[in-house]
Amino acid sequence: MADKSRILNKSLQSKVMSAEEAASLIPNGAVVGMSGFTGAGYPKAVPVALAKRAVDERLKGAKFKINVLSGASTGPELDQAMGLTEAVAFRFPYQGDAVMREKINAGIVEYQDMHLSHAGTHVRNGFYGKVNFAVIEVTKIREDGSLVYSSSVGANNIYLEQAEKIILEVNSWQDERLEGMHDIISINQPYGDRKPIDVWAADSRNGSPYQTIDVSKVVAIVETDCADRNAPFKAPEAVHKAIAGHILDFLANEVKQGRLPKNLTPLQSGVGNIANAVLVGLNEGPFEKMTSYTEVIQDGMLDMLDSGKLTVASATAFSVSPEGQVRFNNNIERYRKQIILRPQEISNHPEVIRRLGCIAMNGLVEADIYGHVNSTHIAGKGIENGIGGSGDFARNAAISIFMTPATAKDGKISCIVPFATHIDHTEHDVSVIVTEHGLADLRGKSPKQRAKEIVEKCAAPEYKPLLNDYMKRAFASPSAGRQSPHLFEEAFSWHSRLLKTGDMRPKK
Amino acid sequence: MADKSRILNKSLQSKVMSAEEAASLIPNGAVVGMSGFTGAGYPKAVPVALAKRAVDERLKGAKFKINVLSGASTGPELDQAMGLTEAVAFRFPYQGDAVMREKINAGIVEYQDMHLSHAGTHVRNGFYGKVNFAVIEVTKIREDGSLVYSSSVGANNIYLEQAEKIILEVNSWQDERLEGMHDIISINQPYGDRKPIDVWAADSRNGSPYQTIDVSKVVAIVETDCADRNAPFKAPEAVHKAIAGHILDFLANEVKQGRLPKNLTPLQSGVGNIANAVLVGLNEGPFEKMTSYTEVIQDGMLDMLDSGKLTVASATAFSVSPEGQVRFNNNIERYRKQIILRPQEISNHPEVIRRLGCIAMNGLVEADIYGHVNSTHIAGKGIENGIGGSGDFARNAAISIFMTPATAKDGKISCIVPFATHIDHTEHDVSVIVTEHGLADLRGKSPKQRAKEIVEKCAAPEYKPLLNDYMKRAFASPSAGRQSPHLFEEAFSWHSRLLKTGDMRPKK
Repeated sequence: MADKSRILNKSLQSKVMSAEEAASLIPNGAVVGMSGFTGAGYPKAVPVALAKRAVDERLKGAKFKINVLSGASTGPELDQAMGLTEAVAFRFPYQGDAVMREKINAGIVEYQDMHLSHAGTHVRNGFYGKVNFAVIEVTKIREDGSLVYSSSVGANNIYLEQAEKIILEVNSWQDERLEGMHDIISINQPYGDRKPIDVWAADSRNGSPYQTIDVSKVVAIVETDCADRNAPFKAPEAVHKAIAGHILDFLANEVKQGRLPKNLTPLQSGVGNIANAVLVGLNEGPFEKMTSYTEVIQDGMLDMLDSGKLTVASATAFSVSPEGQVRFNNNIERYRKQIILRPQEISNHPEVIRRLGCIAMNGLVEADIYGHVNSTHIAGKGIENGIGGSGDFARNAAISIFMTPATAKDGKISCIVPFATHIDHTEHDVSVIVTEHGLADLRGKSPKQRAKEIVEKCAAPEYKPLLNDYMKRAFASPSAGRQSPHLFEEAFSWHSRLLKTGDMRPKK
Repeated sequence: MADKSRILNKSLQSKVMSAEEAASLIPNGAVVGMSGFTGAGYPKAVPVALAKRAVDERLKGAKFKINVLSGASTGPELDQAMGLTEAVAFRFPYQGDAVMREKINAGIVEYQDMHLSHAGTHVRNGFYGKVNFAVIEVTKIREDGSLVYSSSVGANNIYLEQAEKIILEVNSWQDERLEGMHDIISINQPYGDRKPIDVWAADSRNGSPYQTIDVSKVVAIVETDCADRNAPFKAPEAVHKAIAGHILDFLANEVKQGRLPKNLTPLQSGVGNIANAVLVGLNEGPFEKMTSYTEVIQDGMLDMLDSGKLTVASATAFSVSPEGQVRFNNNIERYRKQIILRPQEISNHPEVIRRLGCIAMNGLVEADIYGHVNSTHIAGKGIENGIGGSGDFARNAAISIFMTPATAKDGKISCIVPFATHIDHTEHDVSVIVTEHGLADLRGKSPKQRAKEIVEKCAAPEYKPLLNDYMKRAFASPSAGRQSPHLFEEAFSWHSRLLKTGDMRPKK
C-alpha cells in the first residue's frame, strides 16, 4: 500500500492522500456518484471516512448528509457505515443493506428505487441535480490517466463523466489481471446523435477495456487494500431444487416446440439462492454451449464456465462467494476470455436484451392472481431492496420468468395473493411464474385464464382454497367487470390480517 | 369496384371472390391476424361476413368463434360487428370498441391487453398458437405480388409472415398515392441473427415501401370500397387547454435548463382530445422544427405539418377526423414526404424510442399518490381500451408524461387516488403527471416526495384535503414502512364508496 505502483500517471501521483483528507473535500449536501454493484467494486475507505465525519459534525451540532447515487447495492463500508451514522439524505437507484434499509423504512433516508438501465439516463438528464463528486474504485490508473476498473462497472462511466470532481480509490486487493475484462461503451451522445448499441451477441466486444477520464477533474486518490464483500451462497434446498426443476422442464419443452434454440438464448439470472439453484440445475441439465447476458456473475455461472456448459458470461459485476473469489483468482486467465464486464446501461439495455431475446429469471416478493409482481415491498415492513434490473430484463426478454417459494415464514405468508401490495412488474410483463408446486405459463392468456393457471399451478395447498374462493366470488361479482375482477373491500384483507395476527390464514 | 384494376399480379386475379366466400374459408376456432390500428386500415368486409356467419351457425345450433389478433383497435365493421354476434373467443392485443368492450367486461370474450411493441414478438414466439389466417387490407397488389398497405401498418407484417393462409381486402377507397409512404422493416430473424434496428432518426427510411409476401399463401382477395372510421375531434375545452399549457411551460423550462434541445426531442402523443389539445398548443407555441416519432397521426399533427412547426411525423397509422381525411387527401403529395408509416414493432420499439429520447405524452384513468398509473381499468366497469403503446413509450422515453383531468363524472371521481385499482405503469416509469390544476415533476424524487408533489400540484381542490389526510395517517402508521406507506384497510375505500354511492366523496 501507499507505494503508488498502481498509479502510473505521473501527474496524478501528487493527488494521493488519506481517506479522511479526501472525504473532507466533500461538502454537506453534495450529490455523490459512487461505484459499486452488489458487493463488488465499491469504494471502501472514503465512505467510512464520510460516515465518521457525520458523527463528528453531529457532535459539533452541524449537519452532514449527502445524496448517494451508485450502480446498485454496495458493501458494508458504504451503505452500512453511512446508513448507521445517517450520513445519507437521498439514495439512488438500489440498495441491499440491512442498516440502510432500516433507515429508509424509518423515513430517515429518502430512496428512489429505479430500473438500473435508466439510472444513467436519469443522471445525465439532470434529474438529481449536478453530480458534484464521483468516488470510484479502480484496480489501476494507467500512464495516460485512463482507468482499469475493478470487480464491477455499474454506473461508473456516468458518474465520472458527469461529476465536477473525481476521487479515485486504487484498491490493490483487486487482481491486476482484471485488466482486459471490461468493455466500456458509453451512451453519452446527445439525443439525435445516438447510434445503435454495438452489442450484437453476448460475447460482443466493441468498446474499450479502459475508462478515459478528464484527468484534471481528479482531486484525490486514496490507496486501499480491502476485499469485496459478497455473501456466501447456500447449497440449494429442496424448495429451490423443485423450482429449478420446473424451469428446466419448461425450457426443455420450449426447445422441443421449436420456440427456443437447443443452446437456449442468453440467460439472465437474478442474484440469490433460487437463481443459483437454477444455474446448478442448468449445469447438470441437457443444454450445451449456453450463453449469458446478465447483470451479475454468481458462483453457479463460474461452475457453468468451468464445465463448458456456458461459453460466455456478460455482466456488469461479480457477486461470487469468498470461495468463488479464490476459484476466480486461480483461473483468472481463462475467465478473462469468457467473462465481459460492461457498464450497467449496456448490460441492462432494452435494446440489447430484446435483440438477443434473453431468458429472464428473477425472484419476487409476491405475485397476485392476475400476474402482477411485487419485487420490492413487504407489507408492514417497507421496502426490501429494489427493482434492480428485473424490469429491464422482464420487460424486454423473449421469456420473462419470476420465481419464488409459494410461502414464507413457515406458511404464515402466501406469496400468491389476491392483490399485490406493491406492483413493480405489471400483467403485461410477466410470462411465467414458478414455485416449488409448479409453473404457470401465462403467455397468450387473458387475466382470468392467468388467474386459474397461477392458483392451480403455483399456490401452496393451504392457500389454494382461499384463492379459489376469492376468484369465484370476484368473477361473479355484480360490481366488477369480467376482465380482471376484484373485490376491492377484501383485496388486501390477507395483508391486513397478517399485520394484525402475524398470519395470512384466517383462524379456524 | 370488382374491376381488379388494383390487383396487378396476374396469378392473384383468380382469387377474387365475395367477402362471404372468403369468410367461409375460415373454420371455427381459427386464429386470425387482422390488419387495423385505430380506425384505419382494418378489413371491412370479411369481418362483417364472419359476424353474420356466426349468426347463421348459431341458428343451426353450431358454434362459430375465432381468436382475433390485430394491430390495435379497429373500426365498427370488425370489433363492433364481431363483438355483437359473439364471433370472437379471444381478442389481442388492444381494442377500443364499445360493443367489444361490453362483451369483454361481460366475460364473453377473453382479452389479453398487451404492449403493442410486444405483440409481434409474442405472436412470432408462438404464444397464441399457429396463426391460421391473415386478413389484411391493402391499397394495391403490385405485379410481383408485393403489397401497398393502406392507412395503417400495425402488425400486418407479422400476420402475413406467420399465417398459413392469407386473405387480402383491396380497398379502392384508400388513395393510391399512399404508395411510398410506408417503410417496412421486419424483425423476423431468429434470435442470434438480429441486428440493430436501422432507424436512427424520426425521418429514417431504410426499409421497403412494399410488403413482400409468399403469394402462394393467398387464398382469397375481396374488393371493397369502404371508408376508414375515425372519430371527429372536439375543439379543446378549457380543462384540456389548461393541461396543454402546463406541459408547454414544462417543456419550455426543460429547454431553458439545457435538458432538451430547442426543437425538443421527437414527440409521442397518445390519441384523444387532451393529446390533440397539446398538439394545438405546440402548434401555437415557441418551438420550431419539431419532429414526431409516435404511433398515430392525428389532426393536430397535420396542423403542425401544415404550419411547418413539425418537419416529420413517423407513426404506424392515421387517426384523423373525417375533415382531416379530406385535408390529407388534398395535400397527400406533400404529406408523403413528411409522413412515414412503419410497422408497430418499429414505431413502438424500445430500442428506437430510447435512442431518439422521445417525449412521451399519454392519458391515464387514475394515478395513485406514489405515481403508479392505471391506464386501462375503471372500477366497477372493467377494462376500457388497453395499454396500447403507452408502456412502450413511457418506459423508454427521455421524459414520460401522463395527463388527465383531475376529476371525472362531475367531480364524483378523483383521478388521483390513494391506491390505483389496476396498475399499468409503475412508479419506476412515470416522470410527470399533469392535470388542469398543475404539473407534478416526479423525476429524482422518492415515493413520499412524489406523493406530496402529486397531491399538491395535481389533485382537485375538493379531494386535496382527503388525500392529505390519507397521506398524513399513512406516513405515521406504525404498521407501514416509510418508503411507500399505505393503510391497506382503506387503500381502496374511495373505490368501494364509489361503487356503493356513486361518489368517491364521503357524505357530509
